[in-house]
Amino acid sequence: MHPLYEQMETSVFERMSLAAAKHGAVNLGQGFPDFGWPDEILKAAANAVVVGSNQYAPSRGLPALRAAVAEHYGRHHGLDLAADHVCVTSGATEALAAAILATVEPGDEVILLTPAYDAYAPLIRRAGGIAREVALQPPDWRIERAALEAAVTQKTRALVFNNPHNPTGRLFDAEELSAIAEIAVAHDLVVIADEVWEHVLLDGKSFVPIASLPGMEQRTLKCGSAGKIFSLTGWKIGWVVSSPEMASLAARAHQFLTFASAPNLQAAVAFGMAEGDAWLQPMRDRFASARNRMMEGLEAVGYAVLPSASTYFLCVDLAASGIELDDEAFAKLAVEQAGVAAVPLSPFADQDKPRHMIRLCFAKRDDTIDAGVAALAKAR
Amino acid sequence: MHPLYEQMETSVFERMSLAAAKHGAVNLGQGFPDFGWPDEILKAAANAVVVGSNQYAPSRGLPALRAAVAEHYGRHHGLDLAADHVCVTSGATEALAAAILATVEPGDEVILLTPAYDAYAPLIRRAGGIAREVALQPPDWRIERAALEAAVTQKTRALVFNNPHNPTGRLFDAEELSAIAEIAVAHDLVVIADEVWEHVLLDGKSFVPIASLPGMEQRTLKCGSAGKIFSLTGWKIGWVVSSPEMASLAARAHQFLTFASAPNLQAAVAFGMAEGDAWLQPMRDRFASARNRMMEGLEAVGYAVLPSASTYFLCVDLAASGIELDDEAFAKLAVEQAGVAAVPLSPFADQDKPRHMIRLCFAKRDDTIDAGVAALAKAR
Ligand SMILES: CSCCC(=O)C(=O)O
Ligand SMILES: CSCCC(=O)C(=O)O
Repeated sequence: MHPLYEQMETSVFERMSLAAAKHGAVNLGQGFPDFGWPDEILKAAANAVVVGSNQYAPSRGLPALRAAVAEHYGRHHGLDLAADHVCVTSGATEALAAAILATVEPGDEVILLTPAYDAYAPLIRRAGGIAREVALQPPDWRIERAALEAAVTQKTRALVFNNPHNPTGRLFDAEELSAIAEIAVAHDLVVIADEVWEHVLLDGKSFVPIASLPGMEQRTLKCGSAGKIFSLTGWKIGWVVSSPEMASLAARAHQFLTFASAPNLQAAVAFGMAEGDAWLQPMRDRFASARNRMMEGLEAVGYAVLPSASTYFLCVDLAASGIELDDEAFAKLAVEQAGVAAVPLSPFADQDKPRHMIRLCFAKRDDTIDAGVAALAKAR
Repeated sequence: MHPLYEQMETSVFERMSLAAAKHGAVNLGQGFPDFGWPDEILKAAANAVVVGSNQYAPSRGLPALRAAVAEHYGRHHGLDLAADHVCVTSGATEALAAAILATVEPGDEVILLTPAYDAYAPLIRRAGGIAREVALQPPDWRIERAALEAAVTQKTRALVFNNPHNPTGRLFDAEELSAIAEIAVAHDLVVIADEVWEHVLLDGKSFVPIASLPGMEQRTLKCGSAGKIFSLTGWKIGWVVSSPEMASLAARAHQFLTFASAPNLQAAVAFGMAEGDAWLQPMRDRFASARNRMMEGLEAVGYAVLPSASTYFLCVDLAASGIELDDEAFAKLAVEQAGVAAVPLSPFADQDKPRHMIRLCFAKRDDTIDAGVAALAKAR
């Protein structure tokens, strides 16, 4: 068997969700909301199962969904997109897998900004590539142009750019986006843009897709997620959006990863996207107030909370909170003894592991947040 | 971008389905039934969407589905299986991808019996392996032990064994299974067993899983499909079944391919499997009579049809039917001019391409079969 998998651990999200279930803990680990999905989309899916086709969808996705995705990003970002820019995938994880497998050749180096989502590095390695980590430093997690530039070598082929950023909750600013784009253009890099969190914006700021910067449209493979748009993380409907040429290459990888995704769930997502964006501002308001509630609750019991402008997550600095345990030890104690699951940050990097940070998911009802904060109060 | 994808074509199944849609042709190409799914499973899925969780399922699958899959194969095959032998995937294509990525290291050789399902070779290549083709010869498509043995080298790591066999419709016999198992054991090979068609048996014969042969249980990664069991090919719920150790390695590949599959569809499949096997014999009878109808119809208009004991497919020998066009030319003419989509067999091999065979899907209602046969009558 391939040694990569013999050495690999179970994803930290799965590990903490299993531990939460085992110990009956409040699950603030894995990122999923416990409220907020639109009932009409559920009804559309249920209806499509009963009256629609349950046979193979087209491999690149239902035409209605591809059109809806193109229209959606075209409208939001002023990009000129059509259905042939879109390849629907079985969730954003598969979009990342297809994009990375389609891009990375053995020996290629791929730059990651750490802490980085835990799927990137294993996929890069399985593709034969080398993950080059550029560590962002707390509490600002700023992208420093010089550090990024220093990581580029003759072998650098691609860069994975996750914005808004999981686990830090950062929405990168114009200067940081320019650094990414200028370095990508100067060194002819493909940018795999994990922008699944783009709509979960909590402070009224706007999201700028990396593909909209000069020279980027032809080199960006954007990964998006219906689960994050509609708070339906289990549906596993995502997509790659790119130039028609690059989208076709990702589609060729996709056709031998899952071939296609459930037509009924695709139809319901297409329905939801075609309904317009009425859901967007209420979702942001609810998540912003959830973030505020969790942040205030944690601060009230002595935790040092880092700011979060996006995603479902905020980070707690354990050291600054006066806690001497490292992240894994604290997360273990929290789930096993205090009754709350968190995600330690050290699995998000291989080299410069953030060992005194945990991530908490605030996309929860008030009672879930309050129960989680109460449990965390006991953990210190 | 990776050169594999730059040179790769769109899957022949997708290509022919798109052509069928474009030309308004009867689609006897891609393998999906147009009747026969159990209504109660659709209702269970619709209900699960509305009242169940729509957030991430556990990465390895819903416990109820893993237990149902273990119970199902345990009962059918007398194997001693439990939930930890099972990793649920987003369809059997993802099961194959996870199994191949977990097994094949750069430089490994992997044996394929051609004509072979079109996903195997690209996945082996993307994993860094070399696909070694052993060509089965029509009209018998027998596995010859000597040919298989001759394909093994010091570098052979694995063998993909598809039984019952797509596209030929063969159910391999005891002698052929022994050849596979003995060679796998003698050379310490992993067997990736694509057994998705095991229940679609048309002549009263029994299916024997390769894992049940001596020495095979610890070296077999079996790929299965709910879509093929319940005639719901679009749902994309599949699984790897193996030893707990090998299933865990496949699960680590799976966690970074799609992470998990839709919980509502998983729940409905678990429900269907727990209901027992009442669906099984009626399904076999219906598909057998569909096969007979298509075979008789084709023979009546002069086509030379090869026997088919399983799958949704039968093959037509164009040369023996007095047709001089090769398979691709005939398939093009059939879909564009005669109004019926078939699948040419040459995409199922790279070396020894079967250039005078087409595959037809008979898993269709009588009127679809009759329309397809009538269109094929015009194509000659
Ligand atoms: C695929 S499980 C992880 C979900 C997620 O985005 C997170 O928790 O960071
Ligand atoms: C994933 S599309 C191909 C379906 C199938 O099994 C076939 O047509 O052979």
